[in-house]
Amino acid sequence: MDSTETRYWIPGGFRFAGVHCGVKRNPNKQDLSLIVADQPCTAAGVYTQNLFSAAPVQLDRQRTPSDHMRVVVANSGNANACTGEQGLADARQMAAWAAAGCGARPEEALVLSTGIIGEHLPMDRIQSGIAAAYAKLGADPEHVVEAARGIMTTDSSHKLTSRSLHEIVPQAALLGLAKGAAMIGPRMATMLGIVLTDVALDPVEAQDLLSAAVERTFNCISVEGHMSTNDTVLLLANGHASSTRLSVPQRHQFADELEQTCEVLARAIPSDGEGATHLITVSVRGCQNNTDARRIAETVANSALVKTAITGADPNWGRIVSAAGYSGVQFDVNRVTLDLNGYRLFERGAPVRCDSHAVSHSIRDQFDTRIELDFQSGDGAIRFWTSDLTAEYIRLNADYHT
Amino acid sequence: MDSTETRYWIPGGFRFAGVHCGVKRNPNKQDLSLIVADQPCTAAGVYTQNLFSAAPVQLDRQRTPSDHMRVVVANSGNANACTGEQGLADARQMAAWAAAGCGARPEEALVLSTGIIGEHLPMDRIQSGIAAAYAKLGADPEHVVEAARGIMTTDSSHKLTSRSLHEIVPQAALLGLAKGAAMIGPRMATMLGIVLTDVALDPVEAQDLLSAAVERTFNCISVEGHMSTNDTVLLLANGHASSTRLSVPQRHQFADELEQTCEVLARAIPSDGEGATHLITVSVRGCQNNTDARRIAETVANSALVKTAITGADPNWGRIVSAAGYSGVQFDVNRVTLDLNGYRLFERGAPVRCDSHAVSHSIRDQFDTRIELDFQSGDGAIRFWTSDLTAEYIRLNADYHT
Repeated sequence: MDSTETRYWIPGGFRFAGVHCGVKRNPNKQDLSLIVADQPCTAAGVYTQNLFSAAPVQLDRQRTPSDHMRVVVANSGNANACTGEQGLADARQMAAWAAAGCGARPEEALVLSTGIIGEHLPMDRIQSGIAAAYAKLGADPEHVVEAARGIMTTDSSHKLTSRSLHEIVPQAALLGLAKGAAMIGPRMATMLGIVLTDVALDPVEAQDLLSAAVERTFNCISVEGHMSTNDTVLLLANGHASSTRLSVPQRHQFADELEQTCEVLARAIPSDGEGATHLITVSVRGCQNNTDARRIAETVANSALVKTAITGADPNWGRIVSAAGYSGVQFDVNRVTLDLNGYRLFERGAPVRCDSHAVSHSIRDQFDTRIELDFQSGDGAIRFWTSDLTAEYIRLNADYHT
Repeated sequence: MDSTETRYWIPGGFRFAGVHCGVKRNPNKQDLSLIVADQPCTAAGVYTQNLFSAAPVQLDRQRTPSDHMRVVVANSGNANACTGEQGLADARQMAAWAAAGCGARPEEALVLSTGIIGEHLPMDRIQSGIAAAYAKLGADPEHVVEAARGIMTTDSSHKLTSRSLHEIVPQAALLGLAKGAAMIGPRMATMLGIVLTDVALDPVEAQDLLSAAVERTFNCISVEGHMSTNDTVLLLANGHASSTRLSVPQRHQFADELEQTCEVLARAIPSDGEGATHLITVSVRGCQNNTDARRIAETVANSALVKTAITGADPNWGRIVSAAGYSGVQFDVNRVTLDLNGYRLFERGAPVRCDSHAVSHSIRDQFDTRIELDFQSGDGAIRFWTSDLTAEYIRLNADYHT
């Protein structure tokens, strides 16, 4: 993902703004974003599975899937999580203000929040921020970037991706925004994602497409494996490019494009993981089913010993295979093969002699590290992305005070 | 645990030695330990659940419980794990040499190994080390300490504890040795423990007693949650103090003493966790059952965000309750209470106002941190111990090359 990119495929019928309204102290940092659909659109959502789901998650969960959504309003700097009844009332009020700005009904808005847990939203600032955002709405790349920046917390840069859907529907496009750099566990994280398109989808169709794409992308990432209270991915489809429903082949093509969009955004999160010096891709295949593959990949990806080995450019295959060994999945240890950056390190229950200096260099010299495990027992497979674990991560999280 | 202690209750009928034989490079570090029972004794074991169990684990698992064990031989510096058929033959040979030294049969010895994974044991050094250890055997505290030092890897000091069992059986005692500082996950770790007693136990009784004690002690610790290939806890009982079987009340008393011994050793491991600046005790109660309590405690204890919060003396209750929220256990978020070092931080779904500076000071000013979660829904309870996560842990594990 190249955040310096300035040209995007922007779906028609949406307008964007990002402003600073004072939730964050730093006046140079946007902390409120607004996305307005000119006409009611379809909306689907996938949310955190944490029992302590934040107020905006509770609200949006009730409101999606929907075929009459108009607005998404998001703030950073305050998660509105663990805030009780007051928090839910605040989220509802925030949605109502955002809806009122374009003449929509109160329930035609979705709310996203990210930031500190357990503090009430500064509602006066949110209200004036929404007014300021309405005064700035636009549909060009600069406005899209401002909106992407309004949801950032510890992200080092905004996360945006887009693709043309011209081959599916003339003039149509797909645009994705996301944020996230820590508290990233499997099944999402302090992670927000918004995907917009101007093709026409009905609510059930949109929900199915989003759930499938998220399962293989946003649900396959971690930084430290801590699942947050606020994770949300939304898909909005307004039918601006064509109000005709997609044919079955078009739908398949769209599903591919949606998954690729989600994958680009999802990978961007551990790539920007706090203190990360490597993006680690754990590919597991040959399992009896995808569930087993996911469990193994997650266990390897969340091992602090595997992560620190990559930080230190150490081809420590023992840490990798032993993590697979305690994943809870049953397998024949003598059939496992392990490749690291293309070098075979382990097979038939024992290490393979190889040039460990070359493997070490291959880790040190590039940002991407590929761990590939093959269990040779079936078709179950998954890819899982995580960051390495550095002293900088510790510094950031030991020093970040509530 | 005070490793400077020099007086121990040592069960009769056992002799000890620890020597340097060259598995480790540093000639000042012991790397081979020997414990010899003068008469055949009862032996029980609890082992890693990692599918990649090391050769000595595979061997000992076949040999326990037993009523005719004579020797335990242990080496550090090499784990004899992921070493295939050769590794198993080496472990069997190592046991045979150790047994031969006291005229026992080859199968009357147990083997423990810890250290680097995937390399074959230097068998010539092991053989001469066993001979050297036999030449040095003794039953005084100095010999016991030498044996405890022979199983150390990155431990900062040896881990030894003992208690008198005079109230159960005149002259009887209980002695425990352990090692471990990293690759410590729930359900044991790169962790070895040996508990010796001179009361009489039959094999099934010894196995039941050990399994019960381990479940609430060694299986309730983690450093980074990575379960090793070599974890082993052994209990040896030689009946030297009395060959009479324990009565039911004696057995209950013994079970308590055994659990306390295991707890002291188990707590010593995360206390000595690599880079640790705090021992964190996570107490969970009020769950529907102990399994739920364990799952929540493990999830909280293994959260890098919880650990780094303690490192930074930050009473970050949001990280703690949100970890409980993704543990997979269902509970009512409005009934949860959280206390940190005795300060109430969270109840009824929302934070409690408190003097966060005082809480922060209470974390910074002591090595022990107490996290207490009450779910107010039943009798399920557990205590779980872990270390905090520091930049020093990262340094140690990113720089430790295979």
